[in-house]
Amino acid sequence: MTSDSPHIQSVFDRDLERIQALLMRMGGLVEAAMSDAARALDQRDEELAQKVRAADAEVDALEHQINQECARIIALRGPNATDLRTVLSVLKVAGSLERMGDYTKNVAKRVTVLAGMPPVGNAAGTLRRMMRTAELMLKDALDAYIRRDAEMAAHVRLQDEEVDQIYNTLFRAFLTHMMEDPRSITPFMHLHFVAKNIERMGDHATNIAEQVIYLATGELPAEPRPKADTTSLTSADG
Amino acid sequence: MTSDSPHIQSVFDRDLERIQALLMRMGGLVEAAMSDAARALDQRDEELAQKVRAADAEVDALEHQINQECARIIALRGPNATDLRTVLSVLKVAGSLERMGDYTKNVAKRVTVLAGMPPVGNAAGTLRRMMRTAELMLKDALDAYIRRDAEMAAHVRLQDEEVDQIYNTLFRAFLTHMMEDPRSITPFMHLHFVAKNIERMGDHATNIAEQVIYLATGELPAEPRPKADTTSLTSADG
Repeated sequence: MTSDSPHIQSVFDRDLERIQALLMRMGGLVEAAMSDAARALDQRDEELAQKVRAADAEVDALEHQINQECARIIALRGPNATDLRTVLSVLKVAGSLERMGDYTKNVAKRVTVLAGMPPVGNAAGTLRRMMRTAELMLKDALDAYIRRDAEMAAHVRLQDEEVDQIYNTLFRAFLTHMMEDPRSITPFMHLHFVAKNIERMGDHATNIAEQVIYLATGELPAEPRPKADTTSLTSADG
Repeated sequence: MTSDSPHIQSVFDRDLERIQALLMRMGGLVEAAMSDAARALDQRDEELAQKVRAADAEVDALEHQINQECARIIALRGPNATDLRTVLSVLKVAGSLERMGDYTKNVAKRVTVLAGMPPVGNAAGTLRRMMRTAELMLKDALDAYIRRDAEMAAHVRLQDEEVDQIYNTLFRAFLTHMMEDPRSITPFMHLHFVAKNIERMGDHATNIAEQVIYLATGELPAEPRPKADTTSLTSADG
């Protein structure tokens, strides 16, 4: 770990510290946006949703800055294989964070639409819990990244099963509601978009965790990660 | 352009040619899978869908190989800023192709589910046309990439509007069908997944085109690309 090296820091280490700091700021913004989007959904708070949508520009700008910095570091420092692996992992993690930011913005957009419709069902609480789990996964994945803690990262991968589980349950519940009351189809389609977006956020938090495992061990996890959206198995009505 | 440099090729050029060849092979596999998945959907051909699902492993393996090769090239050759930009663009394009492969696999999964249900509506033809457009976008984006042709890449970005348009139309049509016949909700949810996956493939083909513009001009496109999924504006029932 960079900051533990006894007193002598290379120029590369300082560069790396700086881009990792940018990455952590980016992660913090995404975490905050996820939490705000879930609250906006739960409380039908359109103003907060609007704030979440606007905030994504800063996340995108940070990714752009990180990409530039990484390219600069590689070009100027000519890092060795291990250091290069670290820089490339920063690029991957920034890419995952950017997409999590996009999914969060998409959730906020649906809040605005849903605010214009009569409330249906009681999914908002479940969605908020689902988002909370994804948010914790992100937090843990970023902590694991900074500490290069493969064990903690492995735990994040397991948590993704919980998010997938909630998604699959909601998918079935939404279908049932839609069939019972066809007037509720449109709002439930939008709630389903929200659920699917959160499910994808969990996937990207898992991708970050897998980068940690790669950095810490030199190998990507061998066994495929516990899978995922099983709604493609839902052929029955309900 | 590498292959046009008069007779003398650097070691870096040869390396780059090799990874670009891998990238094109990866692109070819994804194109073929997209076409097969659309045909499988249209003809309810479960065996073909199974083939598409199995083929994605090769796409994933190629991305892994490309990642490794790029890291090796950067570490061994210490490319200058321009060459480095090229290598990093290969990583981005490979990432987009990998995700397009995933979306194609997801479409194939839905074919298997839909094959177990009575056919609904007449969307398969439209979905096939939508996939065909996304496939052509990918083909053009990859051609533009090899030629560093920013104009061709700009055209790909415009084509994405067509894909988005088809998606938005289908989304409204699906909602209408579902409301008219609640027994059709489950199959239409799956058809909607298919449409959304194709819409995302268009986005990734556009990402590849944007990498071309970046490589050719040094700048990412200034104006935001013509947007996209407008279903978050669908609050009316229809």
